[in-house]
Amino acid sequence: MCLYRYKAVVSYDGYSYQGFQAQIGEETIEGKLNEAFKNWLSYEVKVVGSGRTDKQVHALGQVIHFDLENEIEANGVKRALNSFLPVDIRILEVTRVSSSFHARFDAKKKEYRYRFSLRPDDVFSYRYAPYFKNLDYDLMLEASKAFLGTHNFKGFCSADIDPNKDLNKTIYEINLIKEDGFMVFSFIGNAFLKYQVRRMMGLLIEIGRHKESPDRITYVLEKQDPKLSHKVAPGYGLTLYKVWY
Amino acid sequence: MCLYRYKAVVSYDGYSYQGFQAQIGEETIEGKLNEAFKNWLSYEVKVVGSGRTDKQVHALGQVIHFDLENEIEANGVKRALNSFLPVDIRILEVTRVSSSFHARFDAKKKEYRYRFSLRPDDVFSYRYAPYFKNLDYDLMLEASKAFLGTHNFKGFCSADIDPNKDLNKTIYEINLIKEDGFMVFSFIGNAFLKYQVRRMMGLLIEIGRHKESPDRITYVLEKQDPKLSHKVAPGYGLTLYKVWY
Repeated sequence: MCLYRYKAVVSYDGYSYQGFQAQIGEETIEGKLNEAFKNWLSYEVKVVGSGRTDKQVHALGQVIHFDLENEIEANGVKRALNSFLPVDIRILEVTRVSSSFHARFDAKKKEYRYRFSLRPDDVFSYRYAPYFKNLDYDLMLEASKAFLGTHNFKGFCSADIDPNKDLNKTIYEINLIKEDGFMVFSFIGNAFLKYQVRRMMGLLIEIGRHKESPDRITYVLEKQDPKLSHKVAPGYGLTLYKVWY
Repeated sequence: MCLYRYKAVVSYDGYSYQGFQAQIGEETIEGKLNEAFKNWLSYEVKVVGSGRTDKQVHALGQVIHFDLENEIEANGVKRALNSFLPVDIRILEVTRVSSSFHARFDAKKKEYRYRFSLRPDDVFSYRYAPYFKNLDYDLMLEASKAFLGTHNFKGFCSADIDPNKDLNKTIYEINLIKEDGFMVFSFIGNAFLKYQVRRMMGLLIEIGRHKESPDRITYVLEKQDPKLSHKVAPGYGLTLYKVWY
């Protein structure tokens, strides 16, 4: 049987979801995508994502691949999926790709953005951007430069990480973007470990509140002990912004 | 018994609510406010709003008043209420007022804003701003000027409106505000009838899609027949922005 592979860019408001990965009895992004295919087609389709996102984490540019038994025009796939998906999960783009394309293995670079609201009690951003009083954003940006380059990020990932995993990751760029009412940290790297951005951000928040010294970053990177970065920034501030192939 | 009257500015993301007005068995803003008081104090407090907002309609500056049996410092009232309210309803400001102040009867002027998203499939604004393809916003603004001044708005309100109500209302200002990714219509008037802004906006959308002529506004205003304005713009695009006293 011939299979036709497609790549799709997926955007979601993750606030109401238990994360990307399908779990029985839980509302997840992957679960909703598989369900949309089930309601659309007569056969089962399994999507493969570029990586998982945590509970409440959003995406502007998550990438998935999947195989169809019939060749359908890419825009038609997009329209059909969007008509079966809830309004908080949207397919932005579908393209036909060769059957060797793999959303996870072929990802070369990813960008995550972490958004802070500058307005306390803003009911129009509580789902997307936490508010912290008196954060020193310039100090946070300055301190964050210690993350640039290649490091073993064991000190900044989930304690239950697979010990056989390669924990050396490279961060190419960190920027602070000022938007109307928001401050946004952007992290571009080759790949990120489970909880990595949220733990990096957790320590940066402590630095921005003058509760930790900027030196602490290098210390935790060197010690490689996840117990040292126990502060995890709220998931709903984080967005998987882009995946490069 | 002495009662101490307070005025509060309330903001809410109305997307998940059945409107402002309390209804048994339904999630409403007024219901949540009364519940917060019930959980905070040992006696019942009933809030009075400047007016109702429909299902899914938001507020940045809804105003309420309520009476407490003890004089409590205004900021303490704000903090206590926010700690008992869900995250999508926030008290922005509390002030002590004289017992003659009335949130509904004393309202002199109101501003409503209707927001359109310029980005199709934007998962970060689907709760707050509908997207319509190819709306001619300049034409809509131009046409909207026919609403300015004092008119009998029977043609633009709910068909079940109380026949004894004064249907003459005045609109002072209509503006189009460009925001990053949004187009926002602002309406400032002395008062607005049930469904009025959504029906005005419903016809403006038809004009913006070139499905109705701009003359239609004056025609419906003159005919005073609500059946002529059956298009009601989605509630979740509308925000009660400000109330003046």
